[in-house]
Amino acid sequence: MRSEERLIFLTNDDGYDAPGFAAAIEMARRFGHVAAIAPETTRSGMSQAITMHDPLYLRQIPRNDDVELYAFSGTPVDCVKMAFDHLFRNRKVDLVLSGINHGSNSATNVLYSGTMGAAIEGSFYGCPAVGLSLCDHSRNADFTAAVHYGSQILSRIFESGVQGPLCLNVNVPVAAIDEIKGIRVCRQTRGFWREEFFRREDPRGREYYWLTGEFVNSEPEAADSDEHALANGFVTIVPVQADMTDYGRMEELKSVF
Amino acid sequence: MRSEERLIFLTNDDGYDAPGFAAAIEMARRFGHVAAIAPETTRSGMSQAITMHDPLYLRQIPRNDDVELYAFSGTPVDCVKMAFDHLFRNRKVDLVLSGINHGSNSATNVLYSGTMGAAIEGSFYGCPAVGLSLCDHSRNADFTAAVHYGSQILSRIFESGVQGPLCLNVNVPVAAIDEIKGIRVCRQTRGFWREEFFRREDPRGREYYWLTGEFVNSEPEAADSDEHALANGFVTIVPVQADMTDYGRMEELKSVF
Repeated sequence: MRSEERLIFLTNDDGYDAPGFAAAIEMARRFGHVAAIAPETTRSGMSQAITMHDPLYLRQIPRNDDVELYAFSGTPVDCVKMAFDHLFRNRKVDLVLSGINHGSNSATNVLYSGTMGAAIEGSFYGCPAVGLSLCDHSRNADFTAAVHYGSQILSRIFESGVQGPLCLNVNVPVAAIDEIKGIRVCRQTRGFWREEFFRREDPRGREYYWLTGEFVNSEPEAADSDEHALANGFVTIVPVQADMTDYGRMEELKSVF
Repeated sequence: MRSEERLIFLTNDDGYDAPGFAAAIEMARRFGHVAAIAPETTRSGMSQAITMHDPLYLRQIPRNDDVELYAFSGTPVDCVKMAFDHLFRNRKVDLVLSGINHGSNSATNVLYSGTMGAAIEGSFYGCPAVGLSLCDHSRNADFTAAVHYGSQILSRIFESGVQGPLCLNVNVPVAAIDEIKGIRVCRQTRGFWREEFFRREDPRGREYYWLTGEFVNSEPEAADSDEHALANGFVTIVPVQADMTDYGRMEELKSVF
């Protein structure tokens, strides 16, 4: 397929005007026509949430090129649904790209991530979907290496003809292109968040909390885990699927219930 | 363990004042002391979302019994984190119960469900966690059968000494107790949502959308799936785990990247 015939759908969870999204648009344009619907504002940590009890507003963001860009008041998953079930429903999407996220979505963060929520949702529509994240939360993060390796991954998806549904959780370490050691296909690292609630008082004397925390890696030595590979300078790819059944415990539980 | 020594943590995604939550509290009190933190308002469809960019408000709801009840302005997962990492952090929780949800969380809905997001999060803290849902969305749903079978499931968890971390997605069909055929341990049904966006105009002439849709079962004949068992009159239990790695595609993908 020639690149001008491809349609690539873009979304993210940092909002349509995030620098990482601009980097993703420029990267994706080299592979096909870009149509994008992204949240109006930052919706990090939105997981696979959908909006059930609020009306949703969509508006086109004017651009001076052929990229179709919309801002949507919903979650990242709402953006994907709006694209496939409404706005672009008569067009064949060849790939979904979610990101480039400002911050890591490795390990169990796949469960909380709006970036990955959108990528998983995208894969439900039968095409390859890539969630691409740079392990740097800052607004001014340098996306050079993420674009470089992201492009390599997109190229290989298109060249290999790998079949969808497919969902990839790609994380890029903070390093220069030539410091990165390559790409590794990994499994999701086991771990959890040790949270802390910062307590403050608002101007009216009402107590409130900020959720903060740090990720605790439960298996720092596991060489096939994504955290381990990232710590060793690799770009990581975790293939993601959506069947959460714990098959390993079914027999035991059948004897209990 | 005697029931007065047990601590059961309750949450939900329909809000602290939902009738299904009241039913869950009454049910859980028979098994131990109940401490509950639930969202201020309905947070259905919140998946495993966390609140990263807003302050969170907590308030105790007075009751005339020994149940400790709090309303929290965050998501269901925020409620679980508030319980384990802050408010009840010095107490050992014996079981997490999320629900009773007004509406089914079977099949792939486990991914979107705030009820199940909270249950999965609860299981990360090492104890058994149960998401309990009745397949009836209405506010006035009859929770009699859900309480009956929910109690049976809690009893068996406590009696069998089944070890955590463990997460169960329990769904109860709409039927009288004696019409229900029993309890079945199942796997998550494959399927997807075919969405429709209802377009309206607000009083200021701005167009907006409501997300609506219907679930499409991709494998209606699969006898080991939860949808099939529900349709045949069984209460379903799907054991849930949080490793989303698609192990089946790792070798293929290693050859691509």
